[in-house]
Amino acid sequence: MEVVQVLHMNKGNGDTSYAKNSTVQRKIISFGKTIIEEALLELSSNYDIDSMGIADLGCSTGPNTLSVISQIMDIVRAASGHLRRRVPEFRLFFNDLYSNDFNSLFMLLPAFYKMLKEEKGIGLASSQCFISGVPGSFYGRLFPSNSLHFVYSFSSLHWLSQVPVGLESYAVKHLNKGKVYISKSSPQSVVTAYSSQFQADFSQFIKSRSQELVPGGRMVLSFLGRKSIDPTTEDGCYQWELLAEALMSLVKEGLIEEDKVASFNAPYYAPCAEELKVEILKEGSFIIDRLEAFEVDWDGGAVADTHNEQGKMMVGERVAKTIRAVVESMLESHFRLGQDTMDVLFIKLAEIVGNHLSKTRTKYINFVISLVRKASHINLEAQPTD
Amino acid sequence: MEVVQVLHMNKGNGDTSYAKNSTVQRKIISFGKTIIEEALLELSSNYDIDSMGIADLGCSTGPNTLSVISQIMDIVRAASGHLRRRVPEFRLFFNDLYSNDFNSLFMLLPAFYKMLKEEKGIGLASSQCFISGVPGSFYGRLFPSNSLHFVYSFSSLHWLSQVPVGLESYAVKHLNKGKVYISKSSPQSVVTAYSSQFQADFSQFIKSRSQELVPGGRMVLSFLGRKSIDPTTEDGCYQWELLAEALMSLVKEGLIEEDKVASFNAPYYAPCAEELKVEILKEGSFIIDRLEAFEVDWDGGAVADTHNEQGKMMVGERVAKTIRAVVESMLESHFRLGQDTMDVLFIKLAEIVGNHLSKTRTKYINFVISLVRKASHINLEAQPTD
Repeated sequence: MEVVQVLHMNKGNGDTSYAKNSTVQRKIISFGKTIIEEALLELSSNYDIDSMGIADLGCSTGPNTLSVISQIMDIVRAASGHLRRRVPEFRLFFNDLYSNDFNSLFMLLPAFYKMLKEEKGIGLASSQCFISGVPGSFYGRLFPSNSLHFVYSFSSLHWLSQVPVGLESYAVKHLNKGKVYISKSSPQSVVTAYSSQFQADFSQFIKSRSQELVPGGRMVLSFLGRKSIDPTTEDGCYQWELLAEALMSLVKEGLIEEDKVASFNAPYYAPCAEELKVEILKEGSFIIDRLEAFEVDWDGGAVADTHNEQGKMMVGERVAKTIRAVVESMLESHFRLGQDTMDVLFIKLAEIVGNHLSKTRTKYINFVISLVRKASHINLEAQPTD
Repeated sequence: MEVVQVLHMNKGNGDTSYAKNSTVQRKIISFGKTIIEEALLELSSNYDIDSMGIADLGCSTGPNTLSVISQIMDIVRAASGHLRRRVPEFRLFFNDLYSNDFNSLFMLLPAFYKMLKEEKGIGLASSQCFISGVPGSFYGRLFPSNSLHFVYSFSSLHWLSQVPVGLESYAVKHLNKGKVYISKSSPQSVVTAYSSQFQADFSQFIKSRSQELVPGGRMVLSFLGRKSIDPTTEDGCYQWELLAEALMSLVKEGLIEEDKVASFNAPYYAPCAEELKVEILKEGSFIIDRLEAFEVDWDGGAVADTHNEQGKMMVGERVAKTIRAVVESMLESHFRLGQDTMDVLFIKLAEIVGNHLSKTRTKYINFVISLVRKASHINLEAQPTD
């Protein structure tokens, strides 16, 4: 499976679309907003920027995408007003993988430009706004050197650039049978493969951004992780444990081959704070301004009583839908399931999730990191930087 | 009809797609290439550019899109080698309307990047290439000031930003009954509405580009026009005359309402050389380096004998397909035809075109203009340029 070409949120606006099932992401964004505001205010007060380059990495497609950028522009406008400076020209870049549904995103732009002009006066001669789509993997260079002032990424960096080396579907030996991510029962080699892949990817991410951001530029990253150093801790992987359980129950029903589950491993990693710090410090060009972790309910915190059957079902269904919107493209590509079997799988998952949550309210752990690009690049390992 | 949202070439890769039916455009591109080469060589020899901004305006989606940009990079690389300079970093921008199929274009990029790296060494640390999609109308600003070095546009500038004012489908009185563009039988008001819209649009295009291109920057534009000053001349409008005929024959069969044809006017204009020069000189910031017109066969010059029925049919079908790939989205939006009726319409058009070409080999007239951005802006009308 080529992650770069296969991974994308469910397209369109239908019942299983990402646009309709991104409540959890919306929750996470609202947590991240104060950190973004803080970073932008500091950026604005330290630098008088004529033309501000802002990139959303892993933008996906949906109402969240444009609402975040709109709030960012509001903050910068307010700061400019406060500092009695001209509102900068905005250069906005929406990045995601090649297979992202950019068409749907772009179709939202005429109304967005109209709103910017009518409500904010942006787009008139005095304050222009230029929007573009930049397809490609953020685990590599996407932008010219020193071209960006602010970078943010929400709910994307927990995706690896690929299934960890050695665990790919064509690997000679399947090391992680019956599981689709790190699990309590996974051998150490699986854990190592995952953490090594994370280190390689995340350091590549940091290095690429350090070249693209101007000195003093800011970056706010928000993504799933885990609290404990132990990678098998429940908050870091339990949603995958339950997906594996759902898949294995379809194996029992003869709807999926067992080998297919054995050869599937999610290109995902939930790091802990220590792992993040190590990679950032090793690369050396960013100062960690903040690194915060908070809990997010699997269902985005909707009030529901999981003590009765109906409540359990509702919560299970909602969580299964948010998972489906995100992982369906991957499952489709690996398992080649028909729509019917896919439906059966997520009905099963809803049931399993509902039961689980009625016993333990497992939560996601979400990190928000705010970074500042140092004025000069200091590589502690003193290695050449390209 | 909102041209900005409706006009796009037929998507995907099917039998009626633009990607499969753009032979005429390919012909036109090959004619334009020598002019592009000339412009780029001059640009490269006059300026040592570190990071070259190149924009394709009206890029559409298909094999043409990437093949042109690839050739442009080859020319620049060769020129750099010849001049013993470093190959510049490439910033490539693909522009088209919001409704263009950017998804299909972006899906071609992984293979394109791979080819660039393996065959040309572009994308390695020494010579980067950054590609983005910029959705929006080129009859307005798309890029930051002074950010581009080379702009080209193929087979797009004959599309107006909108149906000429006064001829829109909701106009009180339909002035151009039974026709869909300027015709011998059109009243003068129709001709004036079209030429005024062209002037407004083209001057806006030139003005926007003059702000985006660096001084000394180059622009090569290729689009359909007409030889004669008379806008009803056959080479400028006859394809629309025949489409109107096909539509009216469906009116007779009761498949389309006559009123619908009366209220439809194509957002298209085929200018003559004089009109182009007037607008370029009026704006004042470009030097016209070249302005050439050449003929293109309706079927892209494929050898076919239109003296026998089979040959006529083949040619007619081919031409009808190239027209369909381009105008179907517009017709769909206005006439709301089902797929069956759309098929009937283009079978009819194929027949009409075949018959016409067996009598007269009408050709398209294509302009190629090569422009140089002056070092300082001289507006002959001395108006503020905001």
